[in-house]
Amino acid sequence: MFQMRAQDFGIRVGSLPRGPRNKITDVPGVLVGHATVDTPTHKTGVTVILPGPQNPFTHKLPAGVCPFNGFGKTAGLLQLQELGTLETPIALTNTLNVGLVHDAMVEYMLSRCEAEGVALRSVNPLVCECNDSTLNHIGERAVGREHVFSALASACQDFAEGDVGGGKGMICHGLKGGIGSASRVLAFDGKTYTIGILVQSNHGVLSDLTVSGVNIGAGLARTLETRAADQGSIIAVLATDLPLDARQLARVARRVSVGLARLGSHIGHGSGEVFVAFSTANPFDFRAETAVRMTTAFHEELLDLPFRAAAECAEEAVLNSMLTAHTVTGWQGNTVYALPELWRPGV
Amino acid sequence: MFQMRAQDFGIRVGSLPRGPRNKITDVPGVLVGHATVDTPTHKTGVTVILPGPQNPFTHKLPAGVCPFNGFGKTAGLLQLQELGTLETPIALTNTLNVGLVHDAMVEYMLSRCEAEGVALRSVNPLVCECNDSTLNHIGERAVGREHVFSALASACQDFAEGDVGGGKGMICHGLKGGIGSASRVLAFDGKTYTIGILVQSNHGVLSDLTVSGVNIGAGLARTLETRAADQGSIIAVLATDLPLDARQLARVARRVSVGLARLGSHIGHGSGEVFVAFSTANPFDFRAETAVRMTTAFHEELLDLPFRAAAECAEEAVLNSMLTAHTVTGWQGNTVYALPELWRPGV
Amino acid sequence: MFQMRAQDFGIRVGSLPRGPRNKITDVPGVLVGHATVDTPTHKTGVTVILPGPQNPFTHKLPAGVCPFNGFGKTAGLLQLQELGTLETPIALTNTLNVGLVHDAMVEYMLSRCEAEGVALRSVNPLVCECNDSTLNHIGERAVGREHVFSALASACQDFAEGDVGGGKGMICHGLKGGIGSASRVLAFDGKTYTIGILVQSNHGVLSDLTVSGVNIGAGLARTLETRAADQGSIIAVLATDLPLDARQLARVARRVSVGLARLGSHIGHGSGEVFVAFSTANPFDFRAETAVRMTTAFHEELLDLPFRAAAECAEEAVLNSMLTAHTVTGWQGNTVYALPELWRPGV
Amino acid sequence: MFQMRAQDFGIRVGSLPRGPRNKITDVPGVLVGHATVDTPTHKTGVTVILPGPQNPFTHKLPAGVCPFNGFGKTAGLLQLQELGTLETPIALTNTLNVGLVHDAMVEYMLSRCEAEGVALRSVNPLVCECNDSTLNHIGERAVGREHVFSALASACQDFAEGDVGGGKGMICHGLKGGIGSASRVLAFDGKTYTIGILVQSNHGVLSDLTVSGVNIGAGLARTLETRAADQGSIIAVLATDLPLDARQLARVARRVSVGLARLGSHIGHGSGEVFVAFSTANPFDFRAETAVRMTTAFHEELLDLPFRAAAECAEEAVLNSMLTAHTVTGWQGNTVYALPELWRPGV
Repeated sequence: MFQMRAQDFGIRVGSLPRGPRNKITDVPGVLVGHATVDTPTHKTGVTVILPGPQNPFTHKLPAGVCPFNGFGKTAGLLQLQELGTLETPIALTNTLNVGLVHDAMVEYMLSRCEAEGVALRSVNPLVCECNDSTLNHIGERAVGREHVFSALASACQDFAEGDVGGGKGMICHGLKGGIGSASRVLAFDGKTYTIGILVQSNHGVLSDLTVSGVNIGAGLARTLETRAADQGSIIAVLATDLPLDARQLARVARRVSVGLARLGSHIGHGSGEVFVAFSTANPFDFRAETAVRMTTAFHEELLDLPFRAAAECAEEAVLNSMLTAHTVTGWQGNTVYALPELWRPGV
Repeated sequence: MFQMRAQDFGIRVGSLPRGPRNKITDVPGVLVGHATVDTPTHKTGVTVILPGPQNPFTHKLPAGVCPFNGFGKTAGLLQLQELGTLETPIALTNTLNVGLVHDAMVEYMLSRCEAEGVALRSVNPLVCECNDSTLNHIGERAVGREHVFSALASACQDFAEGDVGGGKGMICHGLKGGIGSASRVLAFDGKTYTIGILVQSNHGVLSDLTVSGVNIGAGLARTLETRAADQGSIIAVLATDLPLDARQLARVARRVSVGLARLGSHIGHGSGEVFVAFSTANPFDFRAETAVRMTTAFHEELLDLPFRAAAECAEEAVLNSMLTAHTVTGWQGNTVYALPELWRPGV
Repeated sequence: MFQMRAQDFGIRVGSLPRGPRNKITDVPGVLVGHATVDTPTHKTGVTVILPGPQNPFTHKLPAGVCPFNGFGKTAGLLQLQELGTLETPIALTNTLNVGLVHDAMVEYMLSRCEAEGVALRSVNPLVCECNDSTLNHIGERAVGREHVFSALASACQDFAEGDVGGGKGMICHGLKGGIGSASRVLAFDGKTYTIGILVQSNHGVLSDLTVSGVNIGAGLARTLETRAADQGSIIAVLATDLPLDARQLARVARRVSVGLARLGSHIGHGSGEVFVAFSTANPFDFRAETAVRMTTAFHEELLDLPFRAAAECAEEAVLNSMLTAHTVTGWQGNTVYALPELWRPGV
Repeated sequence: MFQMRAQDFGIRVGSLPRGPRNKITDVPGVLVGHATVDTPTHKTGVTVILPGPQNPFTHKLPAGVCPFNGFGKTAGLLQLQELGTLETPIALTNTLNVGLVHDAMVEYMLSRCEAEGVALRSVNPLVCECNDSTLNHIGERAVGREHVFSALASACQDFAEGDVGGGKGMICHGLKGGIGSASRVLAFDGKTYTIGILVQSNHGVLSDLTVSGVNIGAGLARTLETRAADQGSIIAVLATDLPLDARQLARVARRVSVGLARLGSHIGHGSGEVFVAFSTANPFDFRAETAVRMTTAFHEELLDLPFRAAAECAEEAVLNSMLTAHTVTGWQGNTVYALPELWRPGV
């Protein structure tokens, strides 16, 4: 699907080459699905990231996290940090829907494993969230089982960005945020690898918004009344097919903050910044019968390029989340404007 | 209520004086409630710990955590670690019920805050879990909204231990585990303070079980077939009225592991050990209008006694969870025996 | 002393008001001293930060750290993180001189405590470092006991910046870096507080250098041959008189990375980024005879302003480190150029 | 060399088979050396652990750490945790000698690398410490360059335990402690692997001392005046040839605390407990020219056995440190008695 994104507006973020779709789904196997709840009082939903074609429970993927600002309710990080693996798809939803989405993810994994003849008695869903309570009647917890299954069923490579799925009710730098994505292509040893990021953007204050080094937020803030405090969150999910281990993935994830800073954020107190990274290389099948298995490892001294890619993807993904969003009027008549309606690059 | 516990069996754990009830509820304001699901296929439930009479959302309590072995699904730790506060009651349930219990806790907090005229759009429930899938048909997620509300409504000081609430389906060192508690009384500056612990015990292997320094598990293991691997978890919640801050509480919580080791556990891989500690002193009302408030702080060099108390309480609480439990036959006819039916101290 | 700094060049970083000196020494009690080793083969030295007039061993100060990229050799962080306190002045030197400077700091603390009649048998010096091996024959470990004592003796409020002390051999974004500082003034409850930062800047690559949102490094990189990889480090020390506790200080310190990102860094692999923060409020005298003491605490929900101040100070301090430095030719004839010789703001 | 150790006294710790020497040097390639400073006022020294025959700087070894109680001055942990590697031998000395030993280790690595034609401009020595200020005039920092080089030169498999090297002035549970070691042998996939631990024991209070589950300290404490507070430290270094990565090694290291708890310690406030683990498998040569290398990985679900081995080795190593030590009279005439002079197992 076509949506006007940063690259279409002529905005260049960084210097590394983009992937073909310039989305997280440029990483082979990664799919993204949405289910959106869009009623007069509910502007919310759920976005899911499937890390690959295999069942992630039987083929656990190396994963790491940078909880840059832990003022958030993401569930599933305890085990992810201890074992260094991801074992379910990742769901992004609203703050008060973590429980119901968690339960739906359990049900999904139970049925998926049962269909594959795998006994499942314990599973660690990764459910991330941002708060959409300005546009969404969040207390009613409108995202249910059916939305999770619908999002999982609709997962594809060419997914929509902006005010869709878990991004429906998001507010970024005082304007409409939501789902955004970007990717970068890296070459090592003559082979090509990809780093892709998907964000659920809900952070920042308008007056700080900076694009390509130019503050555009202060001017907009003079005419538009927005929240002065940074009370949101941003979730960033990074995928790669580089053979990084859990520790390395956490290091890469930490550089997402660089992209946010360049857009003007100082990573506010009220904004839960959680960056999760996983690799599709070296899946671990816990049913393996040998104690020692062969695996691949990435040269630590070459991590600079993945770091740079993470920073670039993060900055561009947040921009894309804002550029693809539409103005939304939701709960209690609150309206949040879309950036492209107020500002055009180069104008 | 009376149940035969370690002290009644003449077992002395450590040297510090016990509190009057020898339970976590010796800490003023702390209450514990249970709801048990007990059907032929379901042996599970939920236990809640109310940290004090005030709404914990408006009067956030200092809290810290030691995720000694993070192979668990506890939700709520991210924010607890970032902000160093607890803002809801704590719920203990089974692994696959974290989602539904989380959702019920959100609903409880919404209604409690609404009743107090407090706007709530974001809240961080702390939902801990252990896996009861041997005795409980865990995939059916039998613990629902009504059990959480029932447990909250029944919270009291003189709560039951053993195979109740979230402890109904637990297995500890191959025998019946569940909810156990203990407390110690400390004096500083002529004042009396209390440290109390409540555990949901579900860890360990039988052959390692050691009471008062004597291995009793190896003998029992010769006649009783039990799981050889340590695939469970233990949750320990520590409460105190000592004015400890979040960092200090995490330090105290870490010493829970000492008690487990003395009972023979080596804190196995498959056993999620999560120790949470909170203080009822110095609640933080986020509606405070001044930037700087007066508070009290505890002398760092005097932490040895709280550390010792944590170790003693943990050891005795686990023992109590086993000594008060009954033999349970549950899902698929699986039977787990209670320690007092197999062994008597001093015999 | 007067040196042309960012403000003198008309560069505005952020929006918060600067302190009177616009240095870390705007925080009452904080002093900074240098000792520089400047020979044909040695371009190195040590910079010390005295946190206040009292002996920090007897009046331990709350402290936190963000080890953003731990590829560094800083000594003293283990205890600082466990106990949340700083108990010595902070020293910044070169990578291979950590040992000798550590030993000198022990000697200084021994004699200072002895002079005050305080028995000292254990002390935790905080010794930070960056690598100056391009300009300095680092293997010879030229910074000795006398330099540490000299730096401590010369500590003052109006300290020099640029290629002095521990900054003598530093390289920042391919140009001459070193010591830089900045401060911001905040008001709460009608009182004025200060946040100040001092950096030892030794990170970044030239082509990324960005000032006020404009990349100036790529153009310079076309004419100047510099290191392509980010192999350095940056140490940032943040001081404040806000009554923040250790956990809050670590949160504030984390925002130093925001300032670095805005100057173009992506926090490279080879660059050890360590950010330490301490508060001069609520010193803890371990000889206190009561278990519980009165203290003050800062409202967590108001941390946004300190976060913003940290980001602004960091960005301006790094700029100042570059703008005040001179071109230096050192070991093996290596020359590193100063930014003001190559570029003028607004030109 | 022969010294009476736990096994010779008939003490059985745990159930896993011991290695041939029952020392850390059962792990192939690992060597241990001591240099002892033994004068009327100085009872101190340095112990070094060489992780293998190759230069650890060019063949970095996977390493992890559990800073169980960070009240210590160990230098080198920042980088070890970030990069997950060990790149020097490990040195154990007294608290105030960290600086001089650090400097000597730098010198050693400089000369070793120079001899191999490897340019070294940055290196991260791991220098651990415990406080021996009761028996040693610690302020004089008696361990110098020559002791470090002597210890390195004397490194062997059949090293001494007890009051030697860095263990000369140690006090464990109020009695003479010092260097102790133990090992366990594990089999996976038909191959044999070893886990070995070396401790520098300096923690605990006498009345808590417990051997084989029996408290023997309380009785001894009635006749022997010892320090009531736990003001020491323990360093444990764990080596293995199992192909564990940094994250897994940190998990294994955490189980060292189990052994300490079983000997009666509650891991006191004043006692810095630092547990470091490294693997000799999968050394990483940073000069590798390919970005991706082959490596081996250990099955996460099989970690229970290494955990158990770590707990057993730790308990036995501490016991060995006490059983092999002699009574020492040192600085200011202070005398610390050796356990075998006061107590005999089975008597």
